[in-house]
Amino acid sequence: MNFSQKLESIQAQNQSLLCVGLDSDYEKIPSFLQKSKNTLFEFNRQIIDATYDLVCAYKPNTAFYESLGENGIKQLKMTCDYLHENYKNIPIIIDAKRADIGNTNQGYVDFIFKYLQADAITVNPYLGQEALQPFLDKKDKGIIVLCKTSNPGSGEFQDLEINGVKLYQFVAKQVIQKWNKNKNCVLVIGATYPEQIAEIRKLDDEIVFLIPGIGTQGGEIEQTVQNAKNSQGKGMIINASRSIIFAGSEQDFAQKARNEALKLKTEINKYLSS
Amino acid sequence: MNFSQKLESIQAQNQSLLCVGLDSDYEKIPSFLQKSKNTLFEFNRQIIDATYDLVCAYKPNTAFYESLGENGIKQLKMTCDYLHENYKNIPIIIDAKRADIGNTNQGYVDFIFKYLQADAITVNPYLGQEALQPFLDKKDKGIIVLCKTSNPGSGEFQDLEINGVKLYQFVAKQVIQKWNKNKNCVLVIGATYPEQIAEIRKLDDEIVFLIPGIGTQGGEIEQTVQNAKNSQGKGMIINASRSIIFAGSEQDFAQKARNEALKLKTEINKYLSS
Repeated sequence: MNFSQKLESIQAQNQSLLCVGLDSDYEKIPSFLQKSKNTLFEFNRQIIDATYDLVCAYKPNTAFYESLGENGIKQLKMTCDYLHENYKNIPIIIDAKRADIGNTNQGYVDFIFKYLQADAITVNPYLGQEALQPFLDKKDKGIIVLCKTSNPGSGEFQDLEINGVKLYQFVAKQVIQKWNKNKNCVLVIGATYPEQIAEIRKLDDEIVFLIPGIGTQGGEIEQTVQNAKNSQGKGMIINASRSIIFAGSEQDFAQKARNEALKLKTEINKYLSS
Repeated sequence: MNFSQKLESIQAQNQSLLCVGLDSDYEKIPSFLQKSKNTLFEFNRQIIDATYDLVCAYKPNTAFYESLGENGIKQLKMTCDYLHENYKNIPIIIDAKRADIGNTNQGYVDFIFKYLQADAITVNPYLGQEALQPFLDKKDKGIIVLCKTSNPGSGEFQDLEINGVKLYQFVAKQVIQKWNKNKNCVLVIGATYPEQIAEIRKLDDEIVFLIPGIGTQGGEIEQTVQNAKNSQGKGMIINASRSIIFAGSEQDFAQKARNEALKLKTEINKYLSS
């Protein structure tokens, strides 16, 4: 089963387009867990056990694991292994935003798909398709390309106009028309830019969007869902990280995370059918 | 001492603009070393011991370490520790090409500058200055921004024209005029694009270029050096990786690497003074 089939299957099973971002910042993890040997993993395990039936994917961001060095990478692997052993039907997206020249990317391919055995990776388009080919060649994996990122300053380059077309639009077109031969590409567009979501949806009905920026970053859910959905009322993965995983800071943090995840999943579904 | 002072000091001491890229691909490391517990580190250690007086920096690329998971990250740290203990005057550039939204980049800052205690990092500009601020705020560190990358397909986006200015030129201008407030920015321009090197040098006499693409990738040394040098006959770090570190595959691989490094350093200096 490839990434897109795995994604569709769990989206149907859990009736959810919600991805929980495992941005497990050590400093923000409930203090009673910081006594554990594997704090990040213990935190993730409890978040996962409390939300597995509400999500369509988990998305750990490598920055929060690398910050702890080899011990962090070990806990990222423990998290992936735990998902494989207990919830193997839920896709793992590694939010790594990697990109290097061709031969070098093979190292990242090995890290993400052999070592972690993840289902998808986020990549940065700046070096072009030729450089990213080692990722794009992974037919069974999801290759999730940054298009219009959710941060306030994303327009510095992404909004530059080339013959009336903005750079992020050009990136979207290249991915849709050229990079997506294996039908394994996904586009990242921030919920903080709902008009841009609508615009890219008009370019292609099929391609899936990974949409961060809901929650702490302020993206508005109704408009995001309305603008992102395709003619079949789907075509998106909506990510929330901090607003879910750090909803509580006491013993009941996992239950609080579940409450937030359920609330968000339900709200997304409401606008999906309206 | 900040990155730029450290760099200038070692460039003067070793009379070298050569950076050796520690792209220590496990598969390409001499087979007799593959029996070692820490193959990547053992390989690096011997390369470093054989070249330390010929270089102005070492540049490990994270991809080749991440490919081995936590064990690879451990060996990357061992390599940095070894340099700190034995050759603390040589700057360490981590070629990571990272970029995420603001708060997330802090994780990478911790990885590169706290855990590895490196001197510089390469970053990808696509998300803009606002996102990269946690890197740019590190006044004492080198923040090395991808501008025109050395790969054959780098033009897909980097050469797009915005009001007569190509994207990579625009990136260079933004970095020179806006991002470089702490005088800690460096630009990456591939030796495979010598005309573009000359063009960016005309924009600014001071900014240092990190130039990959010499050697295996085919960049031509004379033109690279002539085009990159500033009015003081400097302003560049020239990187070679595979052509040096994999020059030999037998017991004498480190000596062969030294021979290649010496040859390249000497050739660079020849064109520098001509």
